[in-house]
Amino acid sequence: MKISGQSIIGSHSALNAGQPFRATNPRTGENLPPDFFSAGPEEVNRAVSLAQQAFATYGQVSGREKGKFLRTIAARIEGAVDELVERAEQETALPKPRLQSETARTSGQLRLFAQVLEEGSWVMARIDRADAGSKPPKPDLRSMLHSLGPVVIFGASNFPLAFSVAGGDTASALAAGNPVIIKAHPAHPGTSELVGQLVRESVQECGFPEGVFSLLLDSGTEVGVALVKHPLVKAVGFTGSHKAGRAIMDAAAARREPIPVFAEMGSTNPVFILPGALRENGESISSGMYKSFTLGAGQFCTKPGIVFLPGNDDATTFVDKLKSSVLQSSQFNMLTSGIRSAYQSATGRRKTETGVKLLAERPASANDQELGVGAAIFEADTESFLRNPELAAEVFGPATLVVRHSSRAQVLELARSLDGHLTATIHGTEADLREFSDLIAILKNKVGRLVFNGFPTGVEVSHAMVHGGPYPSTSDGRSTSVGSQAIFRFCRPVCYQGFPESALPDELRNGNPLGIWRMVDGGTTREALTL
Amino acid sequence: MKISGQSIIGSHSALNAGQPFRATNPRTGENLPPDFFSAGPEEVNRAVSLAQQAFATYGQVSGREKGKFLRTIAARIEGAVDELVERAEQETALPKPRLQSETARTSGQLRLFAQVLEEGSWVMARIDRADAGSKPPKPDLRSMLHSLGPVVIFGASNFPLAFSVAGGDTASALAAGNPVIIKAHPAHPGTSELVGQLVRESVQECGFPEGVFSLLLDSGTEVGVALVKHPLVKAVGFTGSHKAGRAIMDAAAARREPIPVFAEMGSTNPVFILPGALRENGESISSGMYKSFTLGAGQFCTKPGIVFLPGNDDATTFVDKLKSSVLQSSQFNMLTSGIRSAYQSATGRRKTETGVKLLAERPASANDQELGVGAAIFEADTESFLRNPELAAEVFGPATLVVRHSSRAQVLELARSLDGHLTATIHGTEADLREFSDLIAILKNKVGRLVFNGFPTGVEVSHAMVHGGPYPSTSDGRSTSVGSQAIFRFCRPVCYQGFPESALPDELRNGNPLGIWRMVDGGTTREALTL
Repeated sequence: MKISGQSIIGSHSALNAGQPFRATNPRTGENLPPDFFSAGPEEVNRAVSLAQQAFATYGQVSGREKGKFLRTIAARIEGAVDELVERAEQETALPKPRLQSETARTSGQLRLFAQVLEEGSWVMARIDRADAGSKPPKPDLRSMLHSLGPVVIFGASNFPLAFSVAGGDTASALAAGNPVIIKAHPAHPGTSELVGQLVRESVQECGFPEGVFSLLLDSGTEVGVALVKHPLVKAVGFTGSHKAGRAIMDAAAARREPIPVFAEMGSTNPVFILPGALRENGESISSGMYKSFTLGAGQFCTKPGIVFLPGNDDATTFVDKLKSSVLQSSQFNMLTSGIRSAYQSATGRRKTETGVKLLAERPASANDQELGVGAAIFEADTESFLRNPELAAEVFGPATLVVRHSSRAQVLELARSLDGHLTATIHGTEADLREFSDLIAILKNKVGRLVFNGFPTGVEVSHAMVHGGPYPSTSDGRSTSVGSQAIFRFCRPVCYQGFPESALPDELRNGNPLGIWRMVDGGTTREALTL
Repeated sequence: MKISGQSIIGSHSALNAGQPFRATNPRTGENLPPDFFSAGPEEVNRAVSLAQQAFATYGQVSGREKGKFLRTIAARIEGAVDELVERAEQETALPKPRLQSETARTSGQLRLFAQVLEEGSWVMARIDRADAGSKPPKPDLRSMLHSLGPVVIFGASNFPLAFSVAGGDTASALAAGNPVIIKAHPAHPGTSELVGQLVRESVQECGFPEGVFSLLLDSGTEVGVALVKHPLVKAVGFTGSHKAGRAIMDAAAARREPIPVFAEMGSTNPVFILPGALRENGESISSGMYKSFTLGAGQFCTKPGIVFLPGNDDATTFVDKLKSSVLQSSQFNMLTSGIRSAYQSATGRRKTETGVKLLAERPASANDQELGVGAAIFEADTESFLRNPELAAEVFGPATLVVRHSSRAQVLELARSLDGHLTATIHGTEADLREFSDLIAILKNKVGRLVFNGFPTGVEVSHAMVHGGPYPSTSDGRSTSVGSQAIFRFCRPVCYQGFPESALPDELRNGNPLGIWRMVDGGTTREALTL
């Protein structure tokens, strides 16, 4: 495959000129060829108009056909894995094994949604039979989920494959029956374009209208803003910083027609280590904690950025081990120079906060081009932590914060003080859990996922996964961006009243030709309907 | 029961003084005793704080207990039906039989949600079993829906019972496990307080914390604004005008923590009468249309406010019959003087719009105190309709607009021009449906409910009902405010990773003690789980 440096507008490539931009190799600081060109307002308009045209067809396509489409994309990605990993490695400096497993995750996500579509019950079909005898007579009512229209997805910097062009947001939006317009992340434009070409080929192979998929490049923010404001766009998916996510939320809310935004903006993912677990397994929890907060250079949305510990000797042993892990660590290469300097400022600021001590820090390379940073652990006293919301904020990179408390009541107070997070983790014995059952009750209202005796990094792609949480971790805590439930973000229920069999979608027909699970008069069944 | 004129703050009544306000009898224009007093900022704070306290308990209560609570409210409402109907009739001038059936609808809604809770499967429990053999090892993941926290519900002017204090929004928010704070509609404060007392008694009878329910009075907008902006409030339900709904949406989006708003803001509910149906059943459709657009003085969100007809002789016969129905009609009493004057201005403006003719109008009584208005039909030519978005806007009251088209292509163009509506209706024969299958495909993307050979007024409360639709008919077209699916607005998924059986909610335990339908490794089952 050849990287053209141009946006993909349906079946065509743009022909932009003007100021080019390039990807950077974070390990070497070198610019990578070729030149890329930002899309302009005409490309935005054309991509959205094509998407709107395609929606008339693609919004009606069967689950089986959409499933085939997602499987085609997955197969093409697998077929190009070496090329994708090579380019992604140059653009992100992420280790090849990680990129290989991310490619597998990307194909796996597409196939998971294909399975969901082929099985078919996800549409939440509901049938309430007519009752002519009731007063007033009850009409026949049947509802199911339908698609929304053109959806804009922003590629993420930290997942060049699994949360970018054909990642989880795209897979779920396409699965729900929506055309997708990608705003590619400028940190990995080559990887984005390569994957975009594979999706475009898949659209063609499946005979769908070209507007089902477009990909727009931009080194700045203009294209993203224009897409979010475009009147034909019906929803937005985003993974990235709080600042950018909130700007998208505000722009979407200020439209003449406000639209839903599903922004995953990261969080600090508090970890509570309870006394029994600390005593029994402190050493292994400490090494697990170190691995989790430095995994991927700490550039995961689920990185554990706060650890709450009792103020006892077991905790001192735990922290000493964590410090020595940090001091023995290698330097970490960040994804972009912007992320690196944000990490450096954030850790620098943290050193000056009242009540905060630096416990250990691995010095970083002085070579700015290499984008290297060192891991760090801070400690804050409880009062300072409760007083200063900055200390609960995410530091994107390999740093974490220890907070030691002095009583059960203080643990609960600390938990209550937390904002919304993607995850919270509890390490405990069965006895700990009994003693701290109210801690679980508090944390349940703060997060999308509660982890017990594990670590929050490593987000399984499955049916029960919830990768979401109350604001500010996401824009809408009633949703997940990972796992099959992500499809529910991009659809809405439509009810058919008094429709003849011939005009109903297959999912709602009497005979239940797709054999799906439906709710009939309030009961769950996959039987055909007898009237 | 005695009407105190004071807000209900948990188990207590407020003790406000200051400028009193009164309800008005729309039929006579008389002020109705007693005096009512607006809540102040302290009551707002106290109601929300009590709700937040109550959430710690009420958010954990079992489905069975919540079901009993909703059934208690329903029984108390039925026990007080005569008193409620009498006061509501004075405050709204709605006919007693309508108010009696609205009371039954209110109790019915509460019992429908009780059934949903007692059955239990609504929580969408999902279990993905662990797989230690996969790489990396798969953890045990289990997710289900949980409640959000304090929810604010605005009472509606046009449904003093079914969309007010214990109406559909309240029932669904309580069912999902959220404490509710009502902002009562000032048009029927006495009815609101009476129902509020019944809910308060039900909270006490069930032994729940007092903060599960509060009701705040206000003659103006201050209390509503303060509630929407309160940091502890997690969601809002509203039924009313577009202007008020949009103001609430904007305030909620501008918060530090934006919260979801479910505003049902009404719509024009287009009706398409296709040629075959018009020829075969024109007369009965015309009389059905008249009944539907004048039902409840045209003050239903689902009132059909536009009728699209072919430009043939059958249509002339149809329109002539509609005109004569209007000319023979009695006057209609509107709910409030504000709604009456809005109707008078809107119909007055419509007479001056380019391309619009008044086809028939029943003169209204000159007695302003009686709040009477006359029904009206307008006609617009296709081009003016397409050019002027005002003509597709809702006129709240007994008026509708006829638009005659000249071709199949024009029907589709008219359909494509429509904004979001709650409903769209098609009258057609089987042959019409075949010829106009693309009309259904277009309308499906514009509405929450498609009605075939019926009328949109009369919104059945059931599992498959969707009373929602794309903006501007609602704030979030991915939801319904009527029927059991309304519960999904007020909850969010939470995932438990690696939890021991003893710390899991009943819905997610291996033994499936509640016997609910769950998704286990992607398959639907109500069996117990074997590991």
